[in-house]
This record gives sequence, C-alpha cells and structure tokens, in this order.
Amino acid sequence: MTRLEQQINFIMEVDKLKNIVRQNYLADGSRREDDADHSWHLALMCAILSEHSNQEIDLVKTMVMVLIHDIVEIDAGDTYAYDAEFNLSKQERELAAAERIFHLLPEDQAKEMRSLWDEFEANETPEAKFASTLDRVQPFLLNAASEGKSWKEHGVTFSQVMKRNEVTPEGSEALWKYQYELMKKQVELGNLINE
Amino acid sequence: MTRLEQQINFIMEVDKLKNIVRQNYLADGSRREDDADHSWHLALMCAILSEHSNQEIDLVKTMVMVLIHDIVEIDAGDTYAYDAEFNLSKQERELAAAERIFHLLPEDQAKEMRSLWDEFEANETPEAKFASTLDRVQPFLLNAASEGKSWKEHGVTFSQVMKRNEVTPEGSEALWKYQYELMKKQVELGNLINE
Repeated sequence: MTRLEQQINFIMEVDKLKNIVRQNYLADGSRREDDADHSWHLALMCAILSEHSNQEIDLVKTMVMVLIHDIVEIDAGDTYAYDAEFNLSKQERELAAAERIFHLLPEDQAKEMRSLWDEFEANETPEAKFASTLDRVQPFLLNAASEGKSWKEHGVTFSQVMKRNEVTPEGSEALWKYQYELMKKQVELGNLINE
Repeated sequence: MTRLEQQINFIMEVDKLKNIVRQNYLADGSRREDDADHSWHLALMCAILSEHSNQEIDLVKTMVMVLIHDIVEIDAGDTYAYDAEFNLSKQERELAAAERIFHLLPEDQAKEMRSLWDEFEANETPEAKFASTLDRVQPFLLNAASEGKSWKEHGVTFSQVMKRNEVTPEGSEALWKYQYELMKKQVELGNLINE
C-alpha cells in the first residue's frame, strides 16, 4: 500500500465520526450534535478565541488536537460526561480505539497523531489545556442556547456542571469568567437545577 | 458589547452551518453530509495531506480557510455543483452572506476572515488552490464510497465530474492522479454515467 493510500484509508475511516451522536443539541434544539460538527466548531473557536488562552499556544497544534480529540469515539462511543458508570470503562475503550485508528496512517503520522491525542488526554500543556477549555465551553454554550434541553433530559445540576468545569479556568480565565456568569443565569432561567 | 461577546455571537451564529445539508452522502450512504461535517473533514485532510500540495502552504491559513469556506451558505444555501441555474445567482447570494456573517466579529477578525474567504474564492494562492482541491476530492471520495448514490440521484456524468475537477490538479497533482484512477473505476462500476 502506498503512503497516500494509507492516508486515504484513515481519512475514509474517520468519516464514521459523523455518525457518533453527542448528548447536547444544536443551539436551535433541532437535533443532537454529531462529533464531527463538534470538532469543527472547536477548531474554529481555536482560531477565533486563541487570544483568550492563559498561555501562548501553537495554533496548528491546538487545531489538529481538537480535530482528532474525539476520533477514538468511533470505536469507544460517546461517553456522556454525567454518566458515572460508563465513565469507569472509558479509558480502556478509548486506548484500544487509539491503537487501531491512528495506526491506519503511515507510521510517522500515526505516532504524531497518537502523541497529540495522548497530550490532549493528559491535559498538561498549554495547548491541551486550551483545547480542554473549548471542549467544555462549546457544549455549555449550546446547552444554554437550547434552554438546557439535554440538561433537563438528564436532570443535570449546577454542581455537576461546576465539577465538570474544574479544568475550564486552567485554559482560559476569560472564557471561564464568561461561562460562570452564564451558568448562574441558567439557574435563574430554570434550565439548570440548583439543588 | 465586549470583544469576547462579539466573538461568541459569531461562534453561536455559525452553529447554523450544521443545519446546511449537502447533496453528497456520508461514506456509508446513511444520510447526507452537513456543511460542518464536511468542513471538519477538509481541515483534518489539510493536516494529513499537506505534503501532497504542489506548492508549499501555510497550514494554519489553509485550515482556517477550509473551516470557514462554506459559512456563507448559512444565508445563501448549498448550491449543488451540478445545478447550472442556481449557480447563476450564487456569487451575489454569497457576497451578501459574507458581509453579514463575518461582520459579527470584532473588526480586525472580520477583515481577516473575510479576506481569507475572498482568497479561497479567487483560487489563486497556493493555500486557496490546495483548499479547493480538497473541497473537490473529499465529496468525490464520499460519492465513490457510497456507490455513487448522489451521482445516480442527479444523473451526473463522467464529463461533468471532469469539468468540475478542472482545478483539482492545480492544488495537487498527486491527489488528482489518485482521483482520476478512481473516477475511471467508478464508470466501470456503473456508479458514474459515461455518455
């Protein structure tokens, strides 16, 4: 198999990300978002919001990171942030998926993409921290816009969202400040339960 | 309105790209692709395939270009490549959309994004040429994988696909060569009409 054929095989395999459906709805509440939609939105947010990162980031690296961060869900499925039980097996399922999917690529690119995914998961570098922040802010914004549609379906509480967003200020104090104000408003509006 | 509020307004407005449905199906033929899915796929293809560009390209620039290239369709709708009549009014509809949507951003970013979109449309720089090549190769690959589902629905011919792909070799001779072989195979398979 040529190098290009390996690359095309990977590109066609990851088309399946478009069939992985998330819990949150689009802003207009019309349907649940798919993982490719979500990843597109994060990459564009990188381009528009990078000035709000707490630390200087490499933009290409962060954009590629968000483009691939959910690819493991092709095999492992979307694990809802507020599903405690399914989260127990999440790491094992996702590691097996990373092994299979990234290794469709030529060896050098497989290593590069796997390393970016590991870096995202470890959440230690400035790029990973900003990517994680966007990965929390984006569904929050959609949930707020759709009047808490998926929060209501799952009975999600203010303190659960707070817990889920512990890492958000690590990537961007500015985005966290904006989100926190909007969170309090979601409680007032009755979109988020304050127990 | 603060700078961040303007940026968030843009980010929420472009969520509508997920509701713009294209003519081509996903690789598995299960549903038509949406514009955000498509744009995600192109951005990832940039990262994986940039080595096949005829000319050296700036990766960030090309990635942002493909992430925003279809945003005008939020107002202007998806104009099917093989719909001659609707294509007559395409430019006017898309220019009005670009004026409205990019100007939700702070002025400096509005100019930057509008300029990238204009550059994509003009198809003269190495980045625009490679982006256009990906924008043709990606739906071709999905059409081939789905056994020509949307080609068959619209009675698309080999010579129409050839015409549509006149610009493809300008961005990447290597990708064009790969695609041309696959095109001939699509005729043999009966997925594409050879009149």
